[in-house]
Amino acid sequence: MAFTKVVILGGGFGGINAAKALGNSKLDVWMIDRTNHHLFQPLLYQVASAALSPGDIAVPIREILSPYENITVIMGEAVKIDKENKIVVLRNGDHVGFEYLILALGANHSYFGNDQWEKFAPGLKTLNDALQIRERILISFEKAERCDSISEAKKYLNFVIIGGGPTGVEMAGAIAEIAYETMLRNFRRIDVTKTKIYLVEGSPHILPVYPERLSEKAKGYLERSGINVITGKRVTDVTSEGVMVENTFIPAHNIIWAAGNQASPVLKTLGTPLDRQGRAIVEADLSLPGNPDIFVIGDAACAMDQKGKPLPGLAPVAVQQGRYVAMLLRKRIPKNERPPFRYFDKGTMATIGKTKAIGMFNKIQFSGFFAWLAWCFVHILYLIGFRNRFTVLFQWLFSYFTSRRGARLIYRYHIESELTRPPKHPE
Amino acid sequence: MAFTKVVILGGGFGGINAAKALGNSKLDVWMIDRTNHHLFQPLLYQVASAALSPGDIAVPIREILSPYENITVIMGEAVKIDKENKIVVLRNGDHVGFEYLILALGANHSYFGNDQWEKFAPGLKTLNDALQIRERILISFEKAERCDSISEAKKYLNFVIIGGGPTGVEMAGAIAEIAYETMLRNFRRIDVTKTKIYLVEGSPHILPVYPERLSEKAKGYLERSGINVITGKRVTDVTSEGVMVENTFIPAHNIIWAAGNQASPVLKTLGTPLDRQGRAIVEADLSLPGNPDIFVIGDAACAMDQKGKPLPGLAPVAVQQGRYVAMLLRKRIPKNERPPFRYFDKGTMATIGKTKAIGMFNKIQFSGFFAWLAWCFVHILYLIGFRNRFTVLFQWLFSYFTSRRGARLIYRYHIESELTRPPKHPE
Repeated sequence: MAFTKVVILGGGFGGINAAKALGNSKLDVWMIDRTNHHLFQPLLYQVASAALSPGDIAVPIREILSPYENITVIMGEAVKIDKENKIVVLRNGDHVGFEYLILALGANHSYFGNDQWEKFAPGLKTLNDALQIRERILISFEKAERCDSISEAKKYLNFVIIGGGPTGVEMAGAIAEIAYETMLRNFRRIDVTKTKIYLVEGSPHILPVYPERLSEKAKGYLERSGINVITGKRVTDVTSEGVMVENTFIPAHNIIWAAGNQASPVLKTLGTPLDRQGRAIVEADLSLPGNPDIFVIGDAACAMDQKGKPLPGLAPVAVQQGRYVAMLLRKRIPKNERPPFRYFDKGTMATIGKTKAIGMFNKIQFSGFFAWLAWCFVHILYLIGFRNRFTVLFQWLFSYFTSRRGARLIYRYHIESELTRPPKHPE
Repeated sequence: MAFTKVVILGGGFGGINAAKALGNSKLDVWMIDRTNHHLFQPLLYQVASAALSPGDIAVPIREILSPYENITVIMGEAVKIDKENKIVVLRNGDHVGFEYLILALGANHSYFGNDQWEKFAPGLKTLNDALQIRERILISFEKAERCDSISEAKKYLNFVIIGGGPTGVEMAGAIAEIAYETMLRNFRRIDVTKTKIYLVEGSPHILPVYPERLSEKAKGYLERSGINVITGKRVTDVTSEGVMVENTFIPAHNIIWAAGNQASPVLKTLGTPLDRQGRAIVEADLSLPGNPDIFVIGDAACAMDQKGKPLPGLAPVAVQQGRYVAMLLRKRIPKNERPPFRYFDKGTMATIGKTKAIGMFNKIQFSGFFAWLAWCFVHILYLIGFRNRFTVLFQWLFSYFTSRRGARLIYRYHIESELTRPPKHPE
C-alpha cells in the first residue's frame, strides 16, 4: 500500500490538532518540532510569574501522538523549505521529503528593528523564555534585599512591561500579585510594597482588540492592583538601566517585552508573498498561492475571514485551521473543490490579576469576578491531559487561598555574578 | 536590647532546621544560601528522571522562614571564613560579621582527581544538575530516533550509572522505568526495549552501608528490572564515547556520576583539620576544636557517634544536628557545659524502581513492596509544605497507574547542535 507522506512543521495548537485529526488515517504523517513538547501558551505567563511549573502546561508531543501508529515524531529544526523539490531541510542537513506540507511554525517576538533591546527586555514565547523571566523577577527582589541603601534598591523594585495586549496585561497583574501579596512577609530590609509596576502601551487603549468599554474596565482593574498604566506613548529606547517612554526615563532592572510578533523566519525561504508581520499570505483553503500541497496555519499564516479581515493570532484559530487542513487531506479534496476555511469565533477572554477578567462572545461583553471564573474554567478545560488539568486546578486553588506561588525557584542564575563590587576591607 | 548575631551558611536540611529552631528567639539570625530554595534532596533523582518538577521538591527559603521576624534571608555565596575576625566573606566582597556561625554547607561530587570526567558524567546535587541529567536522558532517545542505522542508535540507548549507593540505585531504577514503560509506544524507528542500563559499583556490593542480605535483594530487584549490575569493578576512564570499566569499554552517550562526595571547598578557608572527604572534624558539641562559636553540621561535618564511628551523610543526621546546635545557642550553654550531640537513628531506606525498596531500622530489615510503600509514606511525610506533599502524592499515584511521567520536557537544549553531519545532497 503506497502511503502518502504528510509533514507537519511545529507542534503548537495548529500542528498538534492537524496531527491528531490525521491520526490513524492512511497517511504517513511526520511531526517535526524544535522542542519535544506541546505548550499551552495561554498559561505561559503563569510559569513566568512562578505560579505554575513547566510540567503543568507542557506535554511531550510523543505522548500526545503515541496512540497513532501512522505518526512519526521527530525532534528537529527546519531551516529551509524547498517547495519545488518538496523537501524540508533540517539544521544538521538532513532532508525530509513530503507530498503534503503543513506549516504551523508560529511566531517570535519582534522588536521592530531594535533587536539590541532583546537582551534587556526578554519576550515570552517558550518555556525557556518563561523561566528566564521568572528568574529575573525573583532575582530582582533578592538583589534589592542585598543593597546597602533604599535608593540603590529602588531600581530593582521597578518593573516595566512593554505592550498592553493580553500577555502584557496578564504579566502586569501577575507581578502585582507577587509583589503585593506573595512576597509580603518575606523580606526584612526592603519594603516590597514599594514595588512599582508600569505597563506601557503605544496605542490609546490597552487590549486594543476589545471594545473600549472593556479595555477601560481592564485598565481600572490594573490600576486598583497598583499598576501604573501608560497608554498612547511609545517606548523609544531600552537599556540595561531602564526604559525611555517618549521623554520620560523609567529606571528599571526588570523589563518584559510583550509588544510585537514576527512569524517564523523559515517562511522567508518559501519564496511566497508575506505580510508585514512576516506571515505567509494564504488562499481561502489555507494553501499557498500556486501550491495546493503546502498549507500554512496558525500564527504563521495571514488568512482572511469571510469579511476579508485578517484572522487574529489566537489558539482557537490555529486549532480550527489544523483540523480543517487535516480534513482536506484525509478526504483528498482537490484544490478546486475545497470549501473555504471558516473560523467559528467562540469568544475571547483576558485575565487581570487574581480575580478579574474581561471577555466577549459575539455581542455579549462581560467582566469582573464571574468573567475570571469563566476564564479559569475555559483554560482548565482546554489544558491537554487529565493530569495537568488536575494539578493546575489544585495549584490555582492553593495559591488563591494562600497567595503562595508554587514555583518560586531560582536555579540557573548566580547572584554574585552581577553584584560585583570592590571589597570593603583589604583581604 | 543587644541582639546576638548568628550566621547560618546553607539552607539544606541542617541549616534550615537550625534556623527554624532559632526562630522567634532573641538572636539575630542570618541565613545565607547560594540559591533561593531549600531542596528535598532525597527526591532529586525523581526530577532527574522526569517524574517530578523542580517546584515539587523545592520551597523558597524565604517562604519557610518568613514567620520568624528575627531571621534575615540573604541569597549569596560565601567564599571565605575569617574565623579570627568572625567575618564571612561573600563572593562579591561583602562582609558579614557574626558572633556564632553554623556551617551547613553540604557536599559536592568528587571525581577522585579526575575532574575532566565531570563533563561527560554529571553528578546530581542541585536542581540544575537534575534538569541537565533529565534533558540528557530524554535527548538520547530523540537522537536515537533520528539515527540512520540501528548500530548508530545503539550508543544513545546505552546508559551507565557510576556508583551503587542510594542515588545510583535510584537513578538506575528510574531510567529502567522510563525506557521500558514510559517510552514504550512513543517511538516508531527505534525499539526502546533495546535500551541497556549498566550500574557500576567499585566495592563488592551495591548499597554498601546495608547488610549484605539486603544489598543482594536490591541487586535482584535491579536485575529483574533489566539493569546490568556490575560490582567489584572500578571505572578507569570516562570519555565522550563511553566508560572504561577495568578492561571492558561500554559505549554510552549517557553517563551519570553517583560515586563520590567532597565537602564544600569553603571549609578549606577555615584553617581547621579536615578528613579525607574534606569535612571539618568537629568536637562532641559539633563546634570546631579551639573555636566554640563555630559549628559545622550535616555533610560538611565529620562528627562521631557514641562508638567513635563517623556519622553517615544522611538528612536525619543533618536535621538533628541543626536542632541540637540551635538548642545550645538558644540556651547560651557555655562550651564546657554542652551535652554531646547524640544521633537518634530512625532507620534508612532506599527505593528500587517503581515498586520495590529495602530498609532497616536497628536490627529489623525489610524489603519488597511493603518497604516501598513505607518509603513513599516517609518521603511524603517529610516533604516540606502541604502543597508539595499533596501534588507529589498525586503525581506518584498518577504515574504509578499510568506509567506516564509528568515532567518529560526538553527546553534548554538544542538538538541540532550535536547532530551535525554533511548534507546528503548538495544544496
